[in-house]
Amino acid sequence: MSVKLELQDILATVRDDLVGVDAKVRQAAEVDYPLLATVVDAVIGSGGKRLRPALMLLIARALTHEPSRVILAAAASELLHTAGLVHDDLIDNAATRRGAPTLNSLFDSGTVILLGDYLFAQAARTAAATGSTRVMDIFGRILAEITDGQLREIFKAHDADQTIADYERRIYGKTASLFAGSAEIAAVLSEAPEEQIQAVRQYASDLGIAFQIVDDVLDIRETSETLGKPAGSDLRQGTVTLPMLYFIGNGHDPAAVALVRRAITGNEVSEEDYATAIEQLRATDVLGQSLDEAIRYIERAKDALQALPPSAARDNLSALADFAVERHR
Amino acid sequence: MSVKLELQDILATVRDDLVGVDAKVRQAAEVDYPLLATVVDAVIGSGGKRLRPALMLLIARALTHEPSRVILAAAASELLHTAGLVHDDLIDNAATRRGAPTLNSLFDSGTVILLGDYLFAQAARTAAATGSTRVMDIFGRILAEITDGQLREIFKAHDADQTIADYERRIYGKTASLFAGSAEIAAVLSEAPEEQIQAVRQYASDLGIAFQIVDDVLDIRETSETLGKPAGSDLRQGTVTLPMLYFIGNGHDPAAVALVRRAITGNEVSEEDYATAIEQLRATDVLGQSLDEAIRYIERAKDALQALPPSAARDNLSALADFAVERHR
Repeated sequence: MSVKLELQDILATVRDDLVGVDAKVRQAAEVDYPLLATVVDAVIGSGGKRLRPALMLLIARALTHEPSRVILAAAASELLHTAGLVHDDLIDNAATRRGAPTLNSLFDSGTVILLGDYLFAQAARTAAATGSTRVMDIFGRILAEITDGQLREIFKAHDADQTIADYERRIYGKTASLFAGSAEIAAVLSEAPEEQIQAVRQYASDLGIAFQIVDDVLDIRETSETLGKPAGSDLRQGTVTLPMLYFIGNGHDPAAVALVRRAITGNEVSEEDYATAIEQLRATDVLGQSLDEAIRYIERAKDALQALPPSAARDNLSALADFAVERHR
Repeated sequence: MSVKLELQDILATVRDDLVGVDAKVRQAAEVDYPLLATVVDAVIGSGGKRLRPALMLLIARALTHEPSRVILAAAASELLHTAGLVHDDLIDNAATRRGAPTLNSLFDSGTVILLGDYLFAQAARTAAATGSTRVMDIFGRILAEITDGQLREIFKAHDADQTIADYERRIYGKTASLFAGSAEIAAVLSEAPEEQIQAVRQYASDLGIAFQIVDDVLDIRETSETLGKPAGSDLRQGTVTLPMLYFIGNGHDPAAVALVRRAITGNEVSEEDYATAIEQLRATDVLGQSLDEAIRYIERAKDALQALPPSAARDNLSALADFAVERHR
């Protein structure tokens, strides 16, 4: 509860701009198929914390820039994020997201693929409306990096022998690339000098990595009720995350390591095996170690902000970085 | 055989530029997953006639413009086309395309969705490299129109009561929007006056509609061997095409109409029912009527070309329009 209040405080200065982003997202996502309109609106509406738009708007403020084009770009970023979630939930066969039914639990896969494509298209059009070809290029690169990260997730699934570098590359693509690219776009549209553009990119990339590490910790630590999706779903899907890699690499009890490895490979694993493996991951210090790694990324993110002039918005960006790990408490 | 030679003649003047397009397409579609690289290259390589790039390059020539940025945009158009086919084959559960196995027959659906997304991303990046925000906007609109057309195909499937206007709107989105948008992009990058931009857009839109009508005729008329995919697949999938609408609307034998309607709805239809329905569509004049309609579109397309100055390239564009229907012979 207190964490939520804190995020509201961080975002207070950009609340009006976020309303503008929301209006543009909804407008771009409008479809004129009666069957679909309500559902798509629900997916867009349940968009959670609007973290990426908030990040972009705070950057524009920290760079003291009039935010109208950044509002457009923030809508594009949120649409891209939503399109990715639509395809992601289909690929993962997820039944719920944030407690609500996913599109793929309501429609056939062809419809869901095309809805995702449609949202990608609307994201691209919204980005094009900024009138900046550099923004368009960053936008295309983000989409390529996200799909690269997701393909790596598929090809590295059930592989208990992958490295921490594999994991980092994967979560950069899957999560941090959109944070980094969105921040870069906000700084480009704010006509910031190149050094500041690269600094906010670094800040947001580190923030994104930390955010994903915390997500991966929560997936193991929390209950299904808290998550709004089945607990331990990464392990069940063979998606190897940092706590698992620490567990395998850190000389824990060999029988326990063997069980976690077997759970990752997914060969003849019973529901009880998964539950035991998750219990073992919870019982050791690997979750805390992972959070420590997330905090290191956050510290580096905050250091990068020193390239910006001091301002209330810069302080809010710093607080947003803290929130990315603090939300685990 | 003579038709193929004819197409080669039409495209002779842009052959070198097409080699440049091909190189850019292959470069953009490179992936560094060993498992996938060969297959993606095969999909790109089997890209058929490269009709859309050829169209764009001929337009640049007709507008006497140095084609380097049009070559980039043509690669973007071809990548977008290929990305669409990848998702399309998955949605249709197609086993082969042009006689070769589809990606979805080789990989799980998650991988195929992401490969399509990756190709969309590379298409967007290639389009962004033209440095024109108008091109990016057109590009985003094309993608939105294509997915709109495909969603309509899903929502109107198995509906024997749809109108010819429904059909036209659908095939505009599915096929003609990419022709029209590609032509518009070629003219924009050739710095043509707005009147000529709109003229080539009209030309290519009509050409695309005609092209799809001919495809829909061939799907009924040809054998599986000629098509490189199962014959009559539109009817089997409940995709209603112009010959079917003519057949239903033109007062043919009521029992035959009832059978075709039932085949469209797909309710308890045997393999023999489909075969009989296809035989009945072949036996009447609806295929010829559909080709006549395609020819009317082609005539309008050629009229639109009058807005361009006379040139060998303009003649080739006119011949390309003829080819779109002549290829049925």
